[in-house]
This record gives sequence, structure tokens and C-alpha cells, in this order.
Amino acid sequence: MTISTQITPVKWEDDVLVLLDQTRLPVETIYLHLTTAEEVWGAIRRLEVRGAPAIGMAAAYGLYLGIRDSEAQTYEQFWQELNRQADYLGTSRPTAVNLFWALDRIKARVEKEKDAALSIAELKAAVLNEALAIQAEDAEVCRTIGEHLLTLLQDGMGVLTHCNPGALATAAYGTATAPFYLAKERGWNLKVYADETRPVLQGARLTAYELQRAGIDVTLICDNMAAMVMAQGKVQAVVVGTDRVAANGDVANKIGTYGVAVLAKAHGIPFYVAAPLSSVDLATPTGADIPIEERPAEEITHGLGKQVAPDGIKVYNPAFDVTPAAYITAIVTETGIFKPEEIAKSKQ
Amino acid sequence: MTISTQITPVKWEDDVLVLLDQTRLPVETIYLHLTTAEEVWGAIRRLEVRGAPAIGMAAAYGLYLGIRDSEAQTYEQFWQELNRQADYLGTSRPTAVNLFWALDRIKARVEKEKDAALSIAELKAAVLNEALAIQAEDAEVCRTIGEHLLTLLQDGMGVLTHCNPGALATAAYGTATAPFYLAKERGWNLKVYADETRPVLQGARLTAYELQRAGIDVTLICDNMAAMVMAQGKVQAVVVGTDRVAANGDVANKIGTYGVAVLAKAHGIPFYVAAPLSSVDLATPTGADIPIEERPAEEITHGLGKQVAPDGIKVYNPAFDVTPAAYITAIVTETGIFKPEEIAKSKQ
Repeated sequence: MTISTQITPVKWEDDVLVLLDQTRLPVETIYLHLTTAEEVWGAIRRLEVRGAPAIGMAAAYGLYLGIRDSEAQTYEQFWQELNRQADYLGTSRPTAVNLFWALDRIKARVEKEKDAALSIAELKAAVLNEALAIQAEDAEVCRTIGEHLLTLLQDGMGVLTHCNPGALATAAYGTATAPFYLAKERGWNLKVYADETRPVLQGARLTAYELQRAGIDVTLICDNMAAMVMAQGKVQAVVVGTDRVAANGDVANKIGTYGVAVLAKAHGIPFYVAAPLSSVDLATPTGADIPIEERPAEEITHGLGKQVAPDGIKVYNPAFDVTPAAYITAIVTETGIFKPEEIAKSKQ
Repeated sequence: MTISTQITPVKWEDDVLVLLDQTRLPVETIYLHLTTAEEVWGAIRRLEVRGAPAIGMAAAYGLYLGIRDSEAQTYEQFWQELNRQADYLGTSRPTAVNLFWALDRIKARVEKEKDAALSIAELKAAVLNEALAIQAEDAEVCRTIGEHLLTLLQDGMGVLTHCNPGALATAAYGTATAPFYLAKERGWNLKVYADETRPVLQGARLTAYELQRAGIDVTLICDNMAAMVMAQGKVQAVVVGTDRVAANGDVANKIGTYGVAVLAKAHGIPFYVAAPLSSVDLATPTGADIPIEERPAEEITHGLGKQVAPDGIKVYNPAFDVTPAAYITAIVTETGIFKPEEIAKSKQ
């Protein structure tokens, strides 16, 4: 299902978990070959794998690695061991919701077999198959979002994106980047502008890297160049990802997204949000109800190898912002294209 | 005239041009001692001195350094040499209008003496005195601009600025920062938000540095946080500097200024441009007639001390942008406060 030029951050190959070490990007492309739950724990802990879906997938394979040599004789023994390994993997990054979602899903799969009298070998196979299913489904979600987004774009367009809503964070395709890969498969020539995305530069380090490797026409700009690029007529659409969509269609995403949305509106450019249903949170009424994490000053003042601001300077460093629904042309999920104020329909 | 806490970026001391190396800030405070026009050319080229007025001052002293050892025997020979040196210095940063203004002013000073039968030594002295006069006048221009801007602000306000239109760019006070220093002198409490200003981070390295040293309440943000700061009601005015004001009131300034102006308008926040008359160029009809310098990709990909984007990535790196007059509330010169479309009146 994935296309050959895409980077795949998480792969299951010949009974080995192959992880792209994202801490080495964009300078070095190094794959880690992991064969134990302990190695997977360390990789998640050290952020060698990142992005909510990719972390979930890695943990799922890690859980299989943790039980595949189990010498359990009974379902009950196996179940105990599975839970012990899941609890252990959960300590690698306790704030990563998707990690627990993936571990719980595998546990639920095994629990379903409680009374089915499967052999231990069959239970182990069920764990692996569930991990593979998580990955396959994520790739399909992304591809479907990409298909919907592609209907909103045209060959030859310039498209701006922000942060890394990319293949590196998912099973394949990414979310907001999915239409770029699909367009490439179809022989379209999109011109992608990637905001570098201060302060952690995911756009420069990750989005520019993965699109370049796939042979997609990508140009890196600083965040503060987006307005000029728009004024010059270089982009005809903006596509971004999201961390959470509120019930009223407000969208939380990486800091800077809101500014891009205001600029897009001022230039008459449509602004699209790629949102897997797992990020649509109807229990959150509006963007004002989404807590905004503030991160350490050092991320801005010392973030990339040298000090760029004076000692003791006061810093405001919000990690996310909220784009009000009024600035969003459409939110695109795997179930279709929605006006932001009608996002609840995406889950019906 | 200057206040004690201010940094002086350009000084003429003991027949040497002493420049604060602004590329080493904010960590190191290193003064360069320059004795040739070639050294001054290099310092301007490498942005060791930057900011329109400071570049003009440096070029003026550089022109003196270029002719002080002249062996010209006649006015005509001296004039030729002066022009050759001025042309040379003009190539250090061809978009900096203030550089040409300063060089032309010195040439005009010498040309006035064409029929006065001055000695070559007297002509050389005239060049130096003109350079000194340029610096003294600049300090007075900045203070006056600050006085005008202060009438547009109020005690307790939040004010956003971009890049470094600061004391570090001028003889004293800066242009857009002048009201901040004057407010401080008067006991006002302005809250200044300084955009870090990618890719060269003049806001983080310079504005944050000089305002912090002066005891002004300054908070550093990334460029992509300006929209959120505005939406949160943290700023009630934007004040920026300019490299060139066109006759129709369009304003060229550091990349990102245009985006800030669009965001300010969207949030109902006034957007003021501090513009010494030397940057008001009535010979340039509109912003579209201002050439925009593009700078090397490495400034973005390797500028922060380590590589942050993949090898060979395509980069768009315009150094400046143009803010159309429609986004500008007022342009403030040493002669007063002007609607952008009436900027010609500033020179009447």
C-alpha cells in the first residue's frame, strides 16, 4: 500500500521491528533493528520514534516482542505476562495517549479469546496480527484522508503546510501530507511550501526531509515568510494537521497554525485541516476548552546547538494554538470533507 | 543625549571605526577595530553592522577610511578616488538605501568645495566631519521619532516589534524602539513583545538583548506566536522599522513584517512604522519597485549552529518583504506622524 519512495518510520520485517531513528534526522538516516520489548521501550523513551500513531504502532510491536518467547502454558499465565509487558511499555512515555490506546487494543483482542481454547502459539499470532492491523488501518485512514483532500487540490498548485503532519508520524502517507504523496503517485506536480515551524523545527527537520526523499517538489521557508509567499501567489491552498478538533470545529495544532489561517483568509486562500477521527473530540465543546501547553524557554533560546537570546530573557513559548472554525474552509477526516461547524457529522 | 543603559554600535574613536560585532550577540560583546574601507565593506556584508542608520554611519566612516591615505594631488583626483571608494562600498549591501544616502551626502559635501581651493587634507577633514555629523544627527532623529511615537502609545500597553529597529541599529534610541527607551525614562511600564525574527534572529539576539539591558519589560516570542499573542489581547500596538518607504506609503522591511501587519489588521491593532526621512524614498513609486534581496539557503538550514534541514533542500529565503500602505496606520518620521498615502508631506 505504501509507495516506494516514502519513508516508513515503523516496519515489521522478518520478525524484527525496524524503526527509523528520528532523533538523527535530517542529517542521518539510520534504521534501528529491535528484537526485544526492552529495546522498544528505550526507543520510545529516547523519542527515536515520535508522532502519536507511530508511537502506538511501535508499542504494539514491542508488546509482541515481549511475549513471543513466552513459556506460558495456560491462557491465564499468558494473560498475566501480556499485562506485565503492556504495563512495562506504558512507562516508556506515560503522556502518549496513543501508546495506551494501542496496548489496550491488543489486550482486548487477546481477552476476546479467553474462552476460545486457543493454543499459546495462536494467542501469540493474534497479538502480532493485531499489531499489523493497527498499522494497516492507520495507513488506510491516512490514504483515505489524502484521497478526500486531493479532490480539493489541482495539478500544478502550490500548497503550504506547517509542522510535520507527515508519513514520519504515521504508518504511511501522513495526514496533511497524504495528498502530496498521492499526487506524486498520479504524476501531478504540486509545489509544497513547508514552514520550518519554530521552535522545534519539525517542518525543516522532518517534513522537508520526507517530502524531498519522495521526490516531491518541496521548498523550505521560515514561518514568517508564509505571508509573502501567499502575497506572491505562490500557494493556492493550505493543508495542516491537528492535535485535537473541538465539537464546534475549532482546531488545536502546532503553534503558528492560527497565524497561517489568518493570513490564508486575508489572501483568499482555502485552509484545510487533515484530522483522523481519533483527533476529533466531540467531548470538548470549543477551542477555549483545549489546554495549551507552555514549554521551557530554553527550547527557544538554546534549542538548536547555540544560544540565540540573552541569559535570563523572559520567553513566552506556547506549544499549540487554536484556530477558530471561522478561519477553516474544511476539516477532512477518513469519513469525508466537513465544514468545521458540522464536524460532528464526521462521526455519524 | 543617549541614556546610560544603551549600547552604542558604531563609534569613531582615535581614528579607528569601532563596531560592535552584532553577529556575536547576545552571548559575546566584541568590538571590531576597523582601519580600511575593505574591512568596513566586509563588516557590512557579513551583517556585523546592520540596521539602516548604523550601516549608513559605518559606510560614511568607511568612505573616510578609504580616502584618508589618498595621495591625490588635485581636487579632481580626490573626487575620482572618493567616487571609486563610494561605488565600492555601495556594493556591500545594494538594497540598503541608507548606505547610498550616507555616501551621497559625503560626496555632496566634497562637491560643494569644488571651487573653494581647499587642500587635500582639508577635503579629507571635511569627509570625516560629515561622517561625524551624520551620526550626531541620527541620534537626534531617533529621539524625535520616539517622541512622536510616544504620543500614540499609553502607559501599561503591550507593544509588539519585529527585527531590530533598535539602538543597535542607530546612533542611539533606535527607531521603532525609541518610544520604549523614552517611556522607560518617563517611568512608564510598556510590555514589549519581540519577535525572534528568523532566519537571522535579530529580535532574539539584538532587540531582546538591548531592551533587557535597559531594564525594559521585554518578552521574546517566535515569529509564529505573534498571532496568538494578538488574539490573547496581549498587545495594543505594533511598531516596526523600515528599510525603505515608497512614495505611495508602501514599506519594505525585514521579512515577516508584512505578515505581522496583516495579523495586526485582522485583530484591530494599529500598525506603526518608524521611518527616518533618510528611508523615505519618493523616487520609488510603490513597493513593487523595491528589489527584494534573496539570501543563501544555508542561513535557514545551518544558521542556528547545527544543520536543521536535509542536504540539498530547496529554500526560499527573501530577506525583506513589502507591507502595502493599506495595512499601515501611520508612518512616523522626525518631521511628524503621517498617513502612509501622505508620506510625501514628511519631506515638505
